[in-house]
Amino acid sequence: MTASTSDSTANGDVRSFEPARGEADHPHSALARFGADKPLRLDSGAVLSPFQIGYQTYGTLNAARTNAILICHALSGDQHAANVHPVTGKPGWWETLIGPGKPVDTDRFFVISSNVIGGCLGSTGPSSTNPATGQPYGLDFPVVTIGDMVRAQAMLVDHLGIEKLLAVVGGSMGGMQVLQWAVSYPERVFAAMPIATAARHSAQNIAFHEVGRQAIMADPDWHGGRYLSENTSPRRGLAVARMAAHITYMSDSSLHRKFGRRLQDREGRTFSFDADFQVESYLRHQGEAFVDRFDANSYLYVTRAMDYFDLAADYGGVLANAFKGSKTRFCLVSFTSDWLFTTADSRAVVHALNAAGASVSFAEIESDKGHDAFLLDEPEFFAITRGFIDAAARTVGVN
Amino acid sequence: MTASTSDSTANGDVRSFEPARGEADHPHSALARFGADKPLRLDSGAVLSPFQIGYQTYGTLNAARTNAILICHALSGDQHAANVHPVTGKPGWWETLIGPGKPVDTDRFFVISSNVIGGCLGSTGPSSTNPATGQPYGLDFPVVTIGDMVRAQAMLVDHLGIEKLLAVVGGSMGGMQVLQWAVSYPERVFAAMPIATAARHSAQNIAFHEVGRQAIMADPDWHGGRYLSENTSPRRGLAVARMAAHITYMSDSSLHRKFGRRLQDREGRTFSFDADFQVESYLRHQGEAFVDRFDANSYLYVTRAMDYFDLAADYGGVLANAFKGSKTRFCLVSFTSDWLFTTADSRAVVHALNAAGASVSFAEIESDKGHDAFLLDEPEFFAITRGFIDAAARTVGVN
Repeated sequence: MTASTSDSTANGDVRSFEPARGEADHPHSALARFGADKPLRLDSGAVLSPFQIGYQTYGTLNAARTNAILICHALSGDQHAANVHPVTGKPGWWETLIGPGKPVDTDRFFVISSNVIGGCLGSTGPSSTNPATGQPYGLDFPVVTIGDMVRAQAMLVDHLGIEKLLAVVGGSMGGMQVLQWAVSYPERVFAAMPIATAARHSAQNIAFHEVGRQAIMADPDWHGGRYLSENTSPRRGLAVARMAAHITYMSDSSLHRKFGRRLQDREGRTFSFDADFQVESYLRHQGEAFVDRFDANSYLYVTRAMDYFDLAADYGGVLANAFKGSKTRFCLVSFTSDWLFTTADSRAVVHALNAAGASVSFAEIESDKGHDAFLLDEPEFFAITRGFIDAAARTVGVN
Repeated sequence: MTASTSDSTANGDVRSFEPARGEADHPHSALARFGADKPLRLDSGAVLSPFQIGYQTYGTLNAARTNAILICHALSGDQHAANVHPVTGKPGWWETLIGPGKPVDTDRFFVISSNVIGGCLGSTGPSSTNPATGQPYGLDFPVVTIGDMVRAQAMLVDHLGIEKLLAVVGGSMGGMQVLQWAVSYPERVFAAMPIATAARHSAQNIAFHEVGRQAIMADPDWHGGRYLSENTSPRRGLAVARMAAHITYMSDSSLHRKFGRRLQDREGRTFSFDADFQVESYLRHQGEAFVDRFDANSYLYVTRAMDYFDLAADYGGVLANAFKGSKTRFCLVSFTSDWLFTTADSRAVVHALNAAGASVSFAEIESDKGHDAFLLDEPEFFAITRGFIDAAARTVGVN
C-alpha cells in the first residue's frame, strides 16, 4: 500500500471470482487506494487507514468536469449498477435507469458508482485484511455510518478530480447517502435525488435489521465474525436474514399478485415442510442466491449504518436546520405501496426542505410493487428522473 | 394408554416444569385421552391414535349444559388463557377477557380452553412419544391442519358431554378455528366470534412463517427435528423465528410509541453490535423468553397449519358456500392498525356471511397496537364481546 493514491482499473470479465475475500481478489472494478496520508476519519472517532474504494464509471467526463453524476447503492447493492455483475452474471441493478439514452444518460453524463465503505466488493470492509494483524478484520472493523460512507465517496470524487457533482442519485440506503451528501457537502451537489428513503430509520426498520443480524450471529459458522479465518461462512444465517428482509421490500399486494397462495405443484399440499407454496421456494431462492454475492459481516455493518442514520440528530433534532441555506435542488420520490420507507417519510424531508427554503419537488408514484419499485420498471419514475436530470444539466450548461 | 377416554386433572402449580417433553410431563392441565377406539382422522389421510388433549376449564357447566364457551388459542398461545402460566408464572394470555365478571364471565359460563393438536403443552404433538418407536415423533408427526385441530376439539367437547357450544371465541389462528368450527359443525355453534383473523392465510403471512421455519431448520441443534433425542434444542433458531414474527404483531406506530429510536444508554451509540436501541433488546428478550415455553417443532407444525388454511378451498373457492344455511350468529372484530390480519380480511368473511344470509355483525376497532391489540387492553373490544356473549346467553336462556 503506497502513501499516494493510484488506480488499478482492470478487466471486468473475471470468471473465477470469489466473493468477500478482501481487496486483492477484486480485480473486476476500478480501485481508488488511499494511503497513510489520506486516512478516513470515522464518526466513531476511529481512523481507517489505509483504505480503498471499489467503483465503476460509465460515460465520459467532459472537459469542464461538470457532467458527473454519483449513484449511491442500497443495503444489498454494490457498484455494479449498469454493468453485468461479475459474480452473478446478471444485469446491473439499475440498468433500467442508467445507460445510453436512459434517464441517467451515459451518452451525456459521467456516472460514478462506488461500493460503500464496509461493503464487500472492493471497498475496505470487514472482509478486508486488517494491516495490524494480517487477518481479515471481522468484528475488529470499526462500525461505520452513512456519514462515513459519504466522506469516503467525497474522497473518491476528489481523487477523480471532480469539484462539484451535477447530481447525486440513490434509493433506500442510497437515498440516505444522497441526503447526507446534501448536508455534508452542500456546495458540491447541484441536484439531489433521494428516492424511497427517510431522514432516519424507524423503530420497525431497526427491528427487522436486528432480526437479520441475530440470524447471522446465531449461525455457528459465524464464529464470532472470524469465519473467513475458519474457512467457513454463515450461509444459513445470512440466507434467513435476506429472506426476512426481502419480504419487507415487497408489498402484500405484489406478493399476492406474484404468488397468491399458489402451490408449487398442481397436485396440491404435500403435508410436509417442503416448499409447497411458490412464495416459499421464491424466498428460499432469494436467500441462497444472496449468500453467493454478499459477505455476512458486511451485512451486519451496513445494516448498522442504516440504523444509526438520523440526519436531524446533529442539528438539535430539527431536520430543517440540516438544510439551512442549501442551494441544492432536490427531487424526492416515494411509492404508494412502500411500507419500509413510506410516503410519510419522504414528506417529512420535503417539509424540512420547505422550511429551510430549499428548492424541492416531490412525486409520490402509484405502484403496488412495494419498496422494490425503485429498482423496477416504473415509467413515471423514469420520466421524472429524466426530467429532473435534464433540467439540472440545462441549468449547468451540460449538453 | 387405555382404549377408553379418561381425565387426569392435576394441580396446576408445578414448579419444576420442563417444557416439550411429551404427555407424561404435563400434569399441569386436565388431559382428555383418546385411545384406539377413538382415532383422529387427519386431513392428510393419516390417522393419529392414541392422542390426547391438554385443556383448562373455568366456571361451572350448568345442568342443561347450555353455558359452555370454547376459547381457541393463537400460534404462540396455549390452554392457559385465564390461569397463571405453569412455565412462565405470568397471568393467562386472555385474563383481560376471561374471568369472574369479565366479558367472558366465568361466574356465568363454563369456559373450555384447549391446547391444539400439534402443540406442546399437553396435547399430542411432535414432542410427544411416537408409540411406534418409543421416541419423540419429531418430523414423523403428521402435518395437521386447522380442520384437524377443530376435529380434535370437537372430540374434547363430546368427551365433556356437551352437545352445543354457546359460543366459540378466538383471535388470529384462534379465529381461524372459530371459522372452521362454524363450517364443520354449524349445529354445534350458537355464536361465533372470529377476531383479527382471515378465511385464508395471505402470501405475505406465509412468507413470514417460512422465514421462521427456515431459521429453526437452519439451527444445527435442530438435528432434522430429532433434537429431543439428541438432548439439544434449536433455541437460537426458534428465538430468531419469534423475533421476526413479533414484529408482525405490532404496528409501526406502536413500535414507535413504545421505543421510537430511543437508545438503551443515554451516552448514545456504542458503535458496536450491542443492543443500542431499546427495540433491539426488547426483541432479543422476546426471542429468548419464547424458547423457554415453546417447542421448535410445534412451531413448524402450527405455522404450517395456518399456511394451509383456506376455508373456501373445499367449496369451489366460493367462501359464501362454506356458510350456506348456517344458523350460527357471528360477530367479527378487526383492529385498524393490524397489518397481519387486516380489516379487509375480516370484511371478506363478512361479505361471504352476508351472501350466505347468515346473521353477522362486524366491528373495526380503532387501535394503534397492531395485531396484538386483541390480547391487550381495548375497552371497546371488551364491550363488544360482553354484549355479543350476553345477547347469545339471553337468547339461549342462560342466566
